[in-house]
Amino acid sequence: MAPASPRVVVKVDLKKKPWQQNQPLHNRWHPEIQPVAEVKVGELFRVEMVDWTGGAVKDDGSADDIKSIDLSTVHYLSGPIKVVDEDGVAAKPGDLLVVEICNLGPLPGDEWGFTGSFDRENGGGFLTDHFPCATKAIWYFEGIYAYSPQIPGVRFPGLTHPGIIGTAPTKELLRIWNERERQLEESGVKSLTLCEVVHQRPLANLPTSKGCLLGNIEEGTVEWERVAKEAARTIPGRENGGNCDIKNLSRGSKIYLPVFVEGANLSTGDMHFSQGDGEISFCGAIEMSGFLELKCEIIRNGMQEYLTPMGPTPLHVNPIFEIGPVEPRFSEWLVFEGISVDESGRQHYLDATVAYKRAVLNAIDYLFKFGYSKEQVYLLLSCFPCEGRISGIVDSPNAVATLAIPTAIFDQDIRPKTRNVPVGPRILRKPDVLKSTYDGKLAITKNPNSSS
Amino acid sequence: MAPASPRVVVKVDLKKKPWQQNQPLHNRWHPEIQPVAEVKVGELFRVEMVDWTGGAVKDDGSADDIKSIDLSTVHYLSGPIKVVDEDGVAAKPGDLLVVEICNLGPLPGDEWGFTGSFDRENGGGFLTDHFPCATKAIWYFEGIYAYSPQIPGVRFPGLTHPGIIGTAPTKELLRIWNERERQLEESGVKSLTLCEVVHQRPLANLPTSKGCLLGNIEEGTVEWERVAKEAARTIPGRENGGNCDIKNLSRGSKIYLPVFVEGANLSTGDMHFSQGDGEISFCGAIEMSGFLELKCEIIRNGMQEYLTPMGPTPLHVNPIFEIGPVEPRFSEWLVFEGISVDESGRQHYLDATVAYKRAVLNAIDYLFKFGYSKEQVYLLLSCFPCEGRISGIVDSPNAVATLAIPTAIFDQDIRPKTRNVPVGPRILRKPDVLKSTYDGKLAITKNPNSSS
Amino acid sequence: MAPASPRVVVKVDLKKKPWQQNQPLHNRWHPEIQPVAEVKVGELFRVEMVDWTGGAVKDDGSADDIKSIDLSTVHYLSGPIKVVDEDGVAAKPGDLLVVEICNLGPLPGDEWGFTGSFDRENGGGFLTDHFPCATKAIWYFEGIYAYSPQIPGVRFPGLTHPGIIGTAPTKELLRIWNERERQLEESGVKSLTLCEVVHQRPLANLPTSKGCLLGNIEEGTVEWERVAKEAARTIPGRENGGNCDIKNLSRGSKIYLPVFVEGANLSTGDMHFSQGDGEISFCGAIEMSGFLELKCEIIRNGMQEYLTPMGPTPLHVNPIFEIGPVEPRFSEWLVFEGISVDESGRQHYLDATVAYKRAVLNAIDYLFKFGYSKEQVYLLLSCFPCEGRISGIVDSPNAVATLAIPTAIFDQDIRPKTRNVPVGPRILRKPDVLKSTYDGKLAITKNPNSSS
Amino acid sequence: MAPASPRVVVKVDLKKKPWQQNQPLHNRWHPEIQPVAEVKVGELFRVEMVDWTGGAVKDDGSADDIKSIDLSTVHYLSGPIKVVDEDGVAAKPGDLLVVEICNLGPLPGDEWGFTGSFDRENGGGFLTDHFPCATKAIWYFEGIYAYSPQIPGVRFPGLTHPGIIGTAPTKELLRIWNERERQLEESGVKSLTLCEVVHQRPLANLPTSKGCLLGNIEEGTVEWERVAKEAARTIPGRENGGNCDIKNLSRGSKIYLPVFVEGANLSTGDMHFSQGDGEISFCGAIEMSGFLELKCEIIRNGMQEYLTPMGPTPLHVNPIFEIGPVEPRFSEWLVFEGISVDESGRQHYLDATVAYKRAVLNAIDYLFKFGYSKEQVYLLLSCFPCEGRISGIVDSPNAVATLAIPTAIFDQDIRPKTRNVPVGPRILRKPDVLKSTYDGKLAITKNPNSSS
Repeated sequence: MAPASPRVVVKVDLKKKPWQQNQPLHNRWHPEIQPVAEVKVGELFRVEMVDWTGGAVKDDGSADDIKSIDLSTVHYLSGPIKVVDEDGVAAKPGDLLVVEICNLGPLPGDEWGFTGSFDRENGGGFLTDHFPCATKAIWYFEGIYAYSPQIPGVRFPGLTHPGIIGTAPTKELLRIWNERERQLEESGVKSLTLCEVVHQRPLANLPTSKGCLLGNIEEGTVEWERVAKEAARTIPGRENGGNCDIKNLSRGSKIYLPVFVEGANLSTGDMHFSQGDGEISFCGAIEMSGFLELKCEIIRNGMQEYLTPMGPTPLHVNPIFEIGPVEPRFSEWLVFEGISVDESGRQHYLDATVAYKRAVLNAIDYLFKFGYSKEQVYLLLSCFPCEGRISGIVDSPNAVATLAIPTAIFDQDIRPKTRNVPVGPRILRKPDVLKSTYDGKLAITKNPNSSS
Repeated sequence: MAPASPRVVVKVDLKKKPWQQNQPLHNRWHPEIQPVAEVKVGELFRVEMVDWTGGAVKDDGSADDIKSIDLSTVHYLSGPIKVVDEDGVAAKPGDLLVVEICNLGPLPGDEWGFTGSFDRENGGGFLTDHFPCATKAIWYFEGIYAYSPQIPGVRFPGLTHPGIIGTAPTKELLRIWNERERQLEESGVKSLTLCEVVHQRPLANLPTSKGCLLGNIEEGTVEWERVAKEAARTIPGRENGGNCDIKNLSRGSKIYLPVFVEGANLSTGDMHFSQGDGEISFCGAIEMSGFLELKCEIIRNGMQEYLTPMGPTPLHVNPIFEIGPVEPRFSEWLVFEGISVDESGRQHYLDATVAYKRAVLNAIDYLFKFGYSKEQVYLLLSCFPCEGRISGIVDSPNAVATLAIPTAIFDQDIRPKTRNVPVGPRILRKPDVLKSTYDGKLAITKNPNSSS
Repeated sequence: MAPASPRVVVKVDLKKKPWQQNQPLHNRWHPEIQPVAEVKVGELFRVEMVDWTGGAVKDDGSADDIKSIDLSTVHYLSGPIKVVDEDGVAAKPGDLLVVEICNLGPLPGDEWGFTGSFDRENGGGFLTDHFPCATKAIWYFEGIYAYSPQIPGVRFPGLTHPGIIGTAPTKELLRIWNERERQLEESGVKSLTLCEVVHQRPLANLPTSKGCLLGNIEEGTVEWERVAKEAARTIPGRENGGNCDIKNLSRGSKIYLPVFVEGANLSTGDMHFSQGDGEISFCGAIEMSGFLELKCEIIRNGMQEYLTPMGPTPLHVNPIFEIGPVEPRFSEWLVFEGISVDESGRQHYLDATVAYKRAVLNAIDYLFKFGYSKEQVYLLLSCFPCEGRISGIVDSPNAVATLAIPTAIFDQDIRPKTRNVPVGPRILRKPDVLKSTYDGKLAITKNPNSSS
Repeated sequence: MAPASPRVVVKVDLKKKPWQQNQPLHNRWHPEIQPVAEVKVGELFRVEMVDWTGGAVKDDGSADDIKSIDLSTVHYLSGPIKVVDEDGVAAKPGDLLVVEICNLGPLPGDEWGFTGSFDRENGGGFLTDHFPCATKAIWYFEGIYAYSPQIPGVRFPGLTHPGIIGTAPTKELLRIWNERERQLEESGVKSLTLCEVVHQRPLANLPTSKGCLLGNIEEGTVEWERVAKEAARTIPGRENGGNCDIKNLSRGSKIYLPVFVEGANLSTGDMHFSQGDGEISFCGAIEMSGFLELKCEIIRNGMQEYLTPMGPTPLHVNPIFEIGPVEPRFSEWLVFEGISVDESGRQHYLDATVAYKRAVLNAIDYLFKFGYSKEQVYLLLSCFPCEGRISGIVDSPNAVATLAIPTAIFDQDIRPKTRNVPVGPRILRKPDVLKSTYDGKLAITKNPNSSS
């Protein structure tokens, strides 16, 4: 009588390359990538996924795979999955697709992940001007916990979630994306202040056939060439959800995604064992392969009922999310603050990005005093469940951003002490994160007043 | 034998104007404003404060006082308070001042507050291009709860906190502030992209003798004139703490403030019954008069021990905060997302401010569908305990910001329904917030696809 | 426009004795004790109260006042308060009275409390056979925090609540109470096993005119004599609520009380700054004077709508409570277990009381190893927010009860360590709790295997 | 480089009977039951287990399997597991065994469970005098959620945990257990008041060779006969842990178990998808097969370091538990109260068991008003994460027990309403729980005032 266990609708074989899987993966958004599976509303189903690099990063003793990674190939997604109602009628443009995350986790037999920061010449990260080298830390999982040989002294429960979940765009939406991102890339560095401060090359990631994987569309065909030129990269989050990196989308969450194409064509991937708000080092979550157990509903005509376009077309919408009561909770937090004054002392106007950068830098230098290397903290803040908040966004000229760290995950008391100041590292810096050399020539941001 | 109740070190009389108080208030930061009280470490003491406008906003039936408010006079602060150790030796530059918030609340007999948005020509707010009119809502307190006749259908417990708490700057720090903010004001609109998107005039708030209140320094004297020209406005948060607007700084929190001048010269004010992350409407918290019960410690040489300068001088530091276990908790959240594409569809580069603006706009239009006016939601998101997060800050070109709303504070279920879409306002829009006319001529941002 | 601050409907003067207050107090339950105030539904009102002993316990250096306390005089309650609806029509028998706790706290100027255990010959407590001496600890409040000179090393936020809140009984209900309690007292020791294990004399506390305070009814009159003989003691919780000692009835809670008499006649008292589940030492909470800010509603006919009598008459009901989201939360707990085998090794049948006693004893001996005296822990477990759970009540013959302790409130890590066993007291046992001699002759329960 | 996935040390085959498993199971506690596996401290290992009945209860349309269940065969446990340190030296008597639950869940392909109440003549339950019939509800799992076709209108996340985890007793400890339980069985009904109120036959469950499964010891041999007569039943929790049914022992918890025999001989079983405090219906949790991923540490000499015997011998100890931050949290609770007056109106003395029974009865009748059958609520309160508290244990003669229910798991608002009383069942009672007839002749407790 019992309903069957979750039906496995996408299965991956970790011994195979992404492009060798039985059910083809894809690493671009395009409406012509055909569904590899179909699910009914109310049905519990299971989707497996490779890690976002498709196995390019290894559990070895070096960060060189991170340094030389080919970012044109990411992210490898599972799907698309076509969603139909009880009567077999597909989700339609204008509907809202409700995806409930009933369960998730690493794939059995593959209980490990990695966190890294890219080389400044190849992807970079939020603090790439401070930390231009590629670095890597490996994490091993003990059930819900993760620990890293490269960052001794911390062990924490994962708030596991998919980094990417989204529906397929229409061609019209693709066109909007490609146009606005091209415009940025062409004019951005000159016109946009943030670029001077936090930019990493390239400004945007425009369609490219290099590294492109398009599901059932065979590489080298005319169709493939055409689609590859139109298909959007998966790096940024956009109107279809995508790489939203919301760290609380764990067990018990619901995601309300706009449906743009018949069947919704849900894709997902980029599984994170854990991530901090902002995922600052870019390759910042604990990246892993994994599985999702999902259940879908369709809200017919739900885009109009619940979403409001915010922009020039009815397609300019964003998903909604619901975070439920099933989540680890911490009760004590240490909070670092940043204001929108950059490291050179220059004043920016209500700039939350600059303020958050400063809050993160403050946290790194603070934890450095407790015996961690700055690179260890940079990776740690990327992957453990810290909270990045926009605290004040109106008090001109300073935005105030805060970074809150749960104190319970450290094996030492990291709070300031009234009487006993820290007398030295309690955690040996050795071993440190794995680190490659930086061979570029860009200037590194140095803080003359920082502890070395 | 019981220690005395908290010693009242600053007392205010709400029937008097800010400049008529027995212990003079001040509304600027300057090292020469003399302490009005002295406290010992370990001593529990009480500080009373007027609301940030010093009583300029009334519980009447009009938003005109908001519209015509004189922003040169804000914020009226209590203090400075000199802090000494057990032996009577004052806190010294380089120390860290630990301030524990043991209790706080409204002043007995004055249990009400207000939330407003300023006129676009006089202060504006985060969404002033959408909402150019001055608006006001009055909140009455029932113990820990607040409700507003102008926003029926919500009632929530306050996460009460001081908007402003900080130490006095040195002249050198003042000079740094004034210089960088002047530079922004002089060159900002042209050079900084955010200005085009979210700017409110003025870009910065430079020193001005207009509206200046300087504690014991008598108005009109030569000293007053000199100090008034140097003293920093209290509007932005800065290195000394100040207007950091961290909504979780409630009972049981600790604040670690850098000490720049002998005695620390702690000042505080701008009490908030409750505030949402970002305080988006600018006059956005539930503003009130109130009291703090505080306890201080001094960490000798703590700036060097715990803080790292981030900028060209050793003064470029930020405070640290500690949030304890004593805080209301909500277990279910509805989350709105924004990406760094503005309302015109233009792509910005990893701009968390633009992304947060879009998340807020999405939330406003969503709740509008449940029967609230957009102005009601704008004020509500400013003052109730919503969380503004920087979810993704590395996935070029889109920053992803999220705004999470606790669902429990509404008297209706605001979550999307699979089967029953909302069929119309359950909450009557009447009465609405109090509203003045906008008489300026700046263009209002209209969203062609928005629900009217 | 603002509604008035909470109207003070019961005011106490701590310099006066309980029987000297302007609005007379009472320490018995009886329908003929007349209301001292009237409130309307929806109105926010304030009730002040003396501590349960009416000032008999002092902040001095001795436990002798505890030892010699006159328990016939407790608890001094404020009220009764008559509740009427918007039209002035009183609550009626059969209604449900909703009391919302909007705020509460100590009385200004009286920010201290006490915890004690009674002498075994005069009240005793849950572990009186182990701890026959009267003991006392004084607690001082720093805002939401309490600390005790007699129990160094702990400081915690209060989950403040009224120990007693209830409505007046009818004469019929009084009769039921007196009869069943008399029956127990007359036959209990012989027939009830628990008596052998946990009894304290007397088994019940029957009506007595000794120490009786009856509000407006003048002492010595015929009416007083009659009422005093009928009026129920306030010690146990009963159908009318009363001394329910539910430690989570703090800010934001609602209490649904059955209405037995016209006007409901709400009384309250026995304010606790904090209490552990079970209030094990009897005088176990942090007892204090205080105030409540309340708001009432009437659910007409609500007893029938919501409550079901459980016993021979329609009066055999119990109140319902609602705990809201506004409560301190702890995230890490150390849990002690007890089974229903007593200290002599004797097996009891699914007896949760015996199991809980053993869990408490286990916790005391455990914390004793960390440097506290057993009396310190006994008082601590009575007054800090520990949770007493009935974990298993069906696995014959053992009930399993658990006592969970939030680890965050200690200034040392009290969890077992894998590698570093505790090497001795980190907290000096001196000063210890205040302690009187035990001059009785009852045998003390000794645990031959316990640490001394 | 990655450590291997958790090593599976006990594997079960659900298609086989408990006595047919490759690694033999056992359903008694005895030191001579030999280990089936060995683990090292620090090693992550996986233990699989059958449901407590070993598959005797089916997902069919009848409660007859519950009615006729053979309770002599329960509980089928996995193990014993021998624990050794890094050097291969076994845990020794006097050590403390630390077991960390890193992960757990249902067995893949077997994602369902059952909750039942036994027939009064065959096991009964906490309320068997009210509910003498055998009943059953089937639960299906959707990831972390469970729902039952027999109890529509609720769906909740599991706080999954092992009902039984314990170490092997010595013969001396066995002797203590058997002796005290035999004494109870022989004299209990007469001497113990609780028996009249809550007894289910038998009072205790003494050793019996009927249904006995003893691991590697072959049935029918002389050794088997001898051991079967000595081996303790697994029904009650005892000094070795065992059936403690602590519902919060979920992911991230640690259990500190006394070691009585060389190697500790850890056994575990009786997996619960979810359980309420008390597990009131006896077969009350959502019972399932499942797996645990565990990690052990040994604290050498830890019994003396951390535990204190509470009874006549050094063996009279209890385990300690640690509940970590990884747990679902609910923020709103409805609380039912009971006092130690039984359904006949008789007063009991500080009897937490009687008080809890009344609190449960109150909750059942309350939820009955919202459209559930009383049997549905009885099972629901057994298996969903409600909290059973000992609120007051000193206010003679009434113990106050409370039962707190998280309101968020219902699909209707179950709180009392001020204005709108419930007008009838919102949840259809059909389908109801599966139910067998009660063919016994014992009197059923009827509440004359209860809603039918």
